[in-house]
Amino acid sequence: MIGDGEAETGPLATGWHSNKFLDPRQDGVVLPILHLNGYKIANPTVLARIPEEELLELMRGYGHEPFLVSGGFGHEDPRAVHERFAATLDDVLDRIREIRRVAASDPEAPRLRWPMIILRTPKGWTCPEEIDGVAVEGTFRSHQVPLPNARDTAEHLRILEDWLRSYRPDELFDEAGAPRQEVVALAPEGERRMSANPAANGGLLRVPLRLPDFRDYAVEVAEPGGVDDQATAVLGRWLADVIRLNPTTFRIVGPDETASNRLAPAVYEATAKQWNAEYRPGDVDLARAGRVLEVLSEHQCQGWLEGYLLTGRHGLFNCYEAFVHIVDSMFNQHAKWLESSRRIPWRRPISSLNYLLSSHVWRQDHNGFSHQDPGFVDLAVNKSSEVVRVYFPFDANTLLSTYDHCLRSEDYVNVVVAGKQPAPQWLTMEEAVEHCARGLGVLPWAGTEREGEEPDAVLACAGDVPTLETLAAATILRERIPDLAIRVVNVVDIMRLQSEREHPHGLSDIEFDALFTVDRPVIFAYHGYPWMIHRLTYRRRGHDQIHARGFMERGTTTTPFDMVMLNDLDRYHLAIDVLDRVPGLAARHAGLRQELVDARARARAYTRERGEDIPEIAEWRWTAPRLRGVPSARRAGGAPRA
Amino acid sequence: MIGDGEAETGPLATGWHSNKFLDPRQDGVVLPILHLNGYKIANPTVLARIPEEELLELMRGYGHEPFLVSGGFGHEDPRAVHERFAATLDDVLDRIREIRRVAASDPEAPRLRWPMIILRTPKGWTCPEEIDGVAVEGTFRSHQVPLPNARDTAEHLRILEDWLRSYRPDELFDEAGAPRQEVVALAPEGERRMSANPAANGGLLRVPLRLPDFRDYAVEVAEPGGVDDQATAVLGRWLADVIRLNPTTFRIVGPDETASNRLAPAVYEATAKQWNAEYRPGDVDLARAGRVLEVLSEHQCQGWLEGYLLTGRHGLFNCYEAFVHIVDSMFNQHAKWLESSRRIPWRRPISSLNYLLSSHVWRQDHNGFSHQDPGFVDLAVNKSSEVVRVYFPFDANTLLSTYDHCLRSEDYVNVVVAGKQPAPQWLTMEEAVEHCARGLGVLPWAGTEREGEEPDAVLACAGDVPTLETLAAATILRERIPDLAIRVVNVVDIMRLQSEREHPHGLSDIEFDALFTVDRPVIFAYHGYPWMIHRLTYRRRGHDQIHARGFMERGTTTTPFDMVMLNDLDRYHLAIDVLDRVPGLAARHAGLRQELVDARARARAYTRERGEDIPEIAEWRWTAPRLRGVPSARRAGGAPRA
Repeated sequence: MIGDGEAETGPLATGWHSNKFLDPRQDGVVLPILHLNGYKIANPTVLARIPEEELLELMRGYGHEPFLVSGGFGHEDPRAVHERFAATLDDVLDRIREIRRVAASDPEAPRLRWPMIILRTPKGWTCPEEIDGVAVEGTFRSHQVPLPNARDTAEHLRILEDWLRSYRPDELFDEAGAPRQEVVALAPEGERRMSANPAANGGLLRVPLRLPDFRDYAVEVAEPGGVDDQATAVLGRWLADVIRLNPTTFRIVGPDETASNRLAPAVYEATAKQWNAEYRPGDVDLARAGRVLEVLSEHQCQGWLEGYLLTGRHGLFNCYEAFVHIVDSMFNQHAKWLESSRRIPWRRPISSLNYLLSSHVWRQDHNGFSHQDPGFVDLAVNKSSEVVRVYFPFDANTLLSTYDHCLRSEDYVNVVVAGKQPAPQWLTMEEAVEHCARGLGVLPWAGTEREGEEPDAVLACAGDVPTLETLAAATILRERIPDLAIRVVNVVDIMRLQSEREHPHGLSDIEFDALFTVDRPVIFAYHGYPWMIHRLTYRRRGHDQIHARGFMERGTTTTPFDMVMLNDLDRYHLAIDVLDRVPGLAARHAGLRQELVDARARARAYTRERGEDIPEIAEWRWTAPRLRGVPSARRAGGAPRA
Repeated sequence: MIGDGEAETGPLATGWHSNKFLDPRQDGVVLPILHLNGYKIANPTVLARIPEEELLELMRGYGHEPFLVSGGFGHEDPRAVHERFAATLDDVLDRIREIRRVAASDPEAPRLRWPMIILRTPKGWTCPEEIDGVAVEGTFRSHQVPLPNARDTAEHLRILEDWLRSYRPDELFDEAGAPRQEVVALAPEGERRMSANPAANGGLLRVPLRLPDFRDYAVEVAEPGGVDDQATAVLGRWLADVIRLNPTTFRIVGPDETASNRLAPAVYEATAKQWNAEYRPGDVDLARAGRVLEVLSEHQCQGWLEGYLLTGRHGLFNCYEAFVHIVDSMFNQHAKWLESSRRIPWRRPISSLNYLLSSHVWRQDHNGFSHQDPGFVDLAVNKSSEVVRVYFPFDANTLLSTYDHCLRSEDYVNVVVAGKQPAPQWLTMEEAVEHCARGLGVLPWAGTEREGEEPDAVLACAGDVPTLETLAAATILRERIPDLAIRVVNVVDIMRLQSEREHPHGLSDIEFDALFTVDRPVIFAYHGYPWMIHRLTYRRRGHDQIHARGFMERGTTTTPFDMVMLNDLDRYHLAIDVLDRVPGLAARHAGLRQELVDARARARAYTRERGEDIPEIAEWRWTAPRLRGVPSARRAGGAPRA
């Protein structure tokens, strides 16, 4: 069990602390202060207007011991309030010292209440009491700018002057207008300056993770599709060793889904879920200290991880794909903060905010429509291309390679979407590393194009389920129209699709046109909402030839294949798309087209009757092209057509 | 003051109630029950593992009087628990009757604590105690499917059979497998059936709003741009009368921003903000009952309005544009629910969920980058086209016409983005009604095209600020290149841009091609992220000629014109875009192009020096083309070129 002895600066959740956090060597203290000045922009605040006993109960209900300081009302001298507040602060720090002492002497001591301060002062304290005969100090009217029109009337200008003079600038500034020496002396020096203080600039403390070689965790893939595995479970084995090698600087957060997303059982062999409430017999994988933080609140997960990264450490947020939308707004603000902070010279880079989105739209066999929403990516790519990266690794080895990259990166938000269900594995680790380094590429063993000739059509894909359907469609076409030249392209890093002028990962037009052609139909099977593919490629020369398939908000509780059929992303429809888009093909293969339409109908009927997928789908396996004298496509180093 | 005498069924916020809600004629009761079965999918729940006294304090802190029922542990007979629960329910209902009696006898009586029940039972209560030697009942393992592999082993099948037999099916079903008469008799009849019960099917109760004629609230616009007004303030005057005419069936919710979004002061002349906590001298517009609900929690606003609509009533959620992302996930689920419920025959339509997004991206002169995010629309249009509508009215009269439509509609989510700042008003009410009925259209007075000839370029726009910049760009081009034929198209209903095959509002290709041409450059100035325009139009024939400008995530705290310049959405850049896209024009007008580049540089420098916009921008007014013998473009019924 890893995690003992680490030094944290306070409770990670409101009112919750681990005794293990309370390292007496630590200077820093996290002390919640609820400052109730009574008003928002236009209303009283709720907590300022409930009975004080209810407010204290609420704070105790959150697990705190509240300390109340109230002052500044009825013209009370601010200095008296400052003194009272300072005295309370001393009491509270004594209390924290005592909690630390108990925790240090008995690591299994029950949780003690962490102190917090409720500070009541007037809103707009020391601003003009009244303006135009209406109360301002101590009301919502002092929000933001109490005197917005000071330059419009002499009366308001006089009020402004009186107000500012009330701070006695003559005592603060000299004749030349410079701050006096005793004022300047109040500014902190050295590490106490905010820009130099690691508490405000955690990048100063950041040490890169010690990462085990992800290649050692590879799934052995003798031939494409030859073996099944669960991508996130494989990643979990690597993450377990990331935890072992970095016992105090790496955390996994998640809304009660780390096991459901299959990172367990592996990660719980290396650490525990930190649990600071009561224990019961039979509790599993819970401990006073552990590297996994779980709470069924995506907001809290996001907040924890943001805060943790800001201390210079590292982490990962694993979440059901559909419900990460809960933190859309928090993501927005973090991305904006990253983008802005990159331009501040003294601010040191912090670790990237890494999402692992699993339990995705295509495999909600039991949960249904409410759990089907791949739109977080649409939101993410609205933010600056300087900070946003989006990856769709389509098997275990590409996921390992992708995540190794993410955990090394700085100042990004990495959105990684990956499957958790048993699924065919496609690339050897060597291929996966090359593929992920490129971000996208031809799967040479899957297509039927001939070197030196343009393909008749391109089947492109991003995501595990779309890739499976694409490979199955390629198989149908290979078997039924052997002289059709198909290129299969898989995309892991979808930012590669954008122009290099719009995203640092963007392909040059020359590269893009070579890969996707400028005039052949591209049938693009995409994990999310299909318009994303158009959004990323609309400036490309061949854009009019790109036909994207993806989730069209058609979902329900049904079988995996019924889900792709509902959204025209299934192998049969993709093959039909090729027939329909390659000039002349549909007319020559009307019989095949009809067979494919019938196959869809048959598969749909089977699900309605049996509640599961038809065997020709459920039991389908990739088969390498039968090539005389060439035992496998992989060994041949490509897929020359017969 | 409106709002007295209305009949509500319980508190609208956890723990908060208005005495006015407590109408003794009402049968219905809202009674919060916290069911603590102790576990989630993989962990204990937090509230089940804090000391009971803390839990009770938390509930009291929320304003409740908690009642605790615990049972089912240690093999306790479920019937004993049911009896205890029923007795508690009786106590609680008595308590609610008492609260109602006090409230009815004294409307100004202080808030009383609303009861709630904490019910503790084992997770998976009455499921198999153990499976494979591991505890299941009373642990997280009973989440969802305790016996997923019942058909795999005889042992599991036996456990399943024993479990199901423990419910004594022989007593419940007859020999033919049909439920026995005494079981069937338990099912409710008539209105007590869920499908027929208005408490579960509020559409049954829905009565359309009585809407005052919005035309009576029109801003008088003698000529385009001839008068300034604040669009949302004008809407507020209409909404005040909507409240007066519908005193018990319409509500406005908002996160403390109803005044900031300028719906006040008008709406507070018709009603108050409902406030159920303590009052202080000097409080403004607060009352025990009122039609406006404000709390600085977008989640709570969204939840309130969803619940209110589900009771068959009507409402509007006004919010800062950037922060509506806080409810992205709640919006998603409501939109999915609407889409699904439309297919359920017995479910009656409910009122649309209406958003009014103001304080938008282009006018955050004081708040800056954190407040700049127009991306909610991108999220909204991912949902089914059956339920999502998005509008960008660009002045007060178009906003009035749009919102009248929204408040009449059913089963939609209407997203309306509108400005709150003083701005030029463009359309007469008659024009606004026609324009909004079309959803988009040529502004004939703004362009220089000649009837019977194709324009050289189309300037398209959506949103108030983009429309202003577009009109200013059109002016520059009209004055400097008088023989250039420019068409100006404004779009209020952006779903019109989509193909009619993809959205019920979509224009046919014939209409689209006529309006936007198939081969002339279209410079589209859009309120939000520019890729939305490509996403909506990528199937259109002239798509390659569409050049969209919008918010490119470049923002800060700066002047209005600096903001549009940062994102290349300013009049000078739009004019440059026309020069660059109309074949041959840039070469013939290199001098003008240089002037425009210099004008941008000059405007930028002015903001840096003075902190405000350069007078040529700040004081700019639309001027009608000077046409001999034609006093104004409007009177001429169009804009024939000289």
